[in-house]
Amino acid sequence: MTLPLFEPRNPDFAARTRQSFERQAAMRTLGATLERVQAGRVEIAMPWAEHLTQQHGFLHAGMVSTALDSACGYAGFTLMPLEAAVLTIEFKINLLAPAQGERFRMVGTVIKPGRTVTVCEGQAWAMEGGREKLIATMGCTLMAVVGRDNIQS
Amino acid sequence: MTLPLFEPRNPDFAARTRQSFERQAAMRTLGATLERVQAGRVEIAMPWAEHLTQQHGFLHAGMVSTALDSACGYAGFTLMPLEAAVLTIEFKINLLAPAQGERFRMVGTVIKPGRTVTVCEGQAWAMEGGREKLIATMGCTLMAVVGRDNIQS
Amino acid sequence: MTLPLFEPRNPDFAARTRQSFERQAAMRTLGATLERVQAGRVEIAMPWAEHLTQQHGFLHAGMVSTALDSACGYAGFTLMPLEAAVLTIEFKINLLAPAQGERFRMVGTVIKPGRTVTVCEGQAWAMEGGREKLIATMGCTLMAVVGRDNIQS
Amino acid sequence: MTLPLFEPRNPDFAARTRQSFERQAAMRTLGATLERVQAGRVEIAMPWAEHLTQQHGFLHAGMVSTALDSACGYAGFTLMPLEAAVLTIEFKINLLAPAQGERFRMVGTVIKPGRTVTVCEGQAWAMEGGREKLIATMGCTLMAVVGRDNIQS
Repeated sequence: MTLPLFEPRNPDFAARTRQSFERQAAMRTLGATLERVQAGRVEIAMPWAEHLTQQHGFLHAGMVSTALDSACGYAGFTLMPLEAAVLTIEFKINLLAPAQGERFRMVGTVIKPGRTVTVCEGQAWAMEGGREKLIATMGCTLMAVVGRDNIQS
Repeated sequence: MTLPLFEPRNPDFAARTRQSFERQAAMRTLGATLERVQAGRVEIAMPWAEHLTQQHGFLHAGMVSTALDSACGYAGFTLMPLEAAVLTIEFKINLLAPAQGERFRMVGTVIKPGRTVTVCEGQAWAMEGGREKLIATMGCTLMAVVGRDNIQS
Repeated sequence: MTLPLFEPRNPDFAARTRQSFERQAAMRTLGATLERVQAGRVEIAMPWAEHLTQQHGFLHAGMVSTALDSACGYAGFTLMPLEAAVLTIEFKINLLAPAQGERFRMVGTVIKPGRTVTVCEGQAWAMEGGREKLIATMGCTLMAVVGRDNIQS
Repeated sequence: MTLPLFEPRNPDFAARTRQSFERQAAMRTLGATLERVQAGRVEIAMPWAEHLTQQHGFLHAGMVSTALDSACGYAGFTLMPLEAAVLTIEFKINLLAPAQGERFRMVGTVIKPGRTVTVCEGQAWAMEGGREKLIATMGCTLMAVVGRDNIQS
């Protein structure tokens, strides 16, 4: 499917996204870094790490979700106006293959931006020995939140 | 809805579930403990912790998912025969309220056990000042896996 | 889980829900009837019918979804203010057993009402020979829509 | 994302898919036709029709789901061995825009084939006045079923 181009409503969206990412302590726990920030598309990378694994030594599906949810959430955030914060309403993840690899790349893409509700898709890729494999896909619905004191951008 | 009663196929299911939980390094990262293990129902508890938060200071939705996915996965695991391991095929989470609170309780329940595919539901509750609030619900599909060398129970 | 009680914002919610249901031509195609309308809970019934089946003679999963989505949507609608319409943002259905039976009962329940976003759960039951069986569960997210000319209540 | 190429396990997959589609009475109720059948990809078309609408005159989300679920299910079916039938375990649909248009095109694509579990994605497009608009996306999990008397291909 050909992606439409998105026009950000805040020209400073990349810096604002990076600042918010820095405030997500969960991303430090994952060892995750924000690799690319485009209008409507965000890429996060993280290494395999023992403290994130389930009983078979793969990354726990929930840890994959954590990075994918941030990739989707920030993809939506890049298109938000300056005064809006973003909350995840729901997401669904399909785990296509065990999360084994040296590194992982999570890509979140807006497929439908909206004033209130934004829909994103995420893809998680495992990298090992120079090869990439799609290990999970996410569908994610975000809500723009304005004017709540405890939820700032 | 009235839950059917489940008959475990492995009488030692509780000990086996606890052993597997101990091997999930991700649960230690969450500070999560396995509270109750019944046939078809598992409860996990965890405290709020700064290293699991998103930018507003709530638990990251992915971290809530991590604990809920384990609660659902182990609920299914309690009904598995001895030789089977369990993998999450997919889950969907609805985030009903920000994950703020002192402690959190994640309950996974089997709603449809199966030889190959098992369906579970999860509920995440936030506890603060003696009150409990439902903050997330999960639908989760598991697959029993037998005879794969890299996936053991 | 114990359901909270809901206070409808429109005292005439039941009549209003019935009027909207009458305007869903898709419900007539299903042979569906609106059985119970409570604040935050709606029940729809429908018979098995050949023109709704898939290749094995069961009700098509999509037809089960159609009735369940209406049950969830109207459950949310009962709690809306007079001026609001409701749209489904997304739903997820788990098909627990083939949709075979004489009749089917779809129950939609609000689990989290909201000014903008409302979350519901649905259960589909098949009835045959005096017995009921849970055949599907749905998680459903609704959005209240106000002031769009082409979307009225 | 670049799609891998799929190798069908049954060289006669297209004819077999068309025969099964003919047996879905629900597809006739939708006025749906099977447009393209490739290994791992199926396209279904249908016109707008009054008897499939909800209260605003759009196609009911469940009717969109019905066609998308068949598109995904048959996409998976094209890759099945001769003796296998396919059942939908679960699907999730995001409704991106009201289902209004003259005609609709539903595309199902396999993203991960498997011996037991196959994962697909679906996209629903509305066509009006020569323009196409993405109105819904689906994630869908299928199970191959072999040797159950009441579930044949």
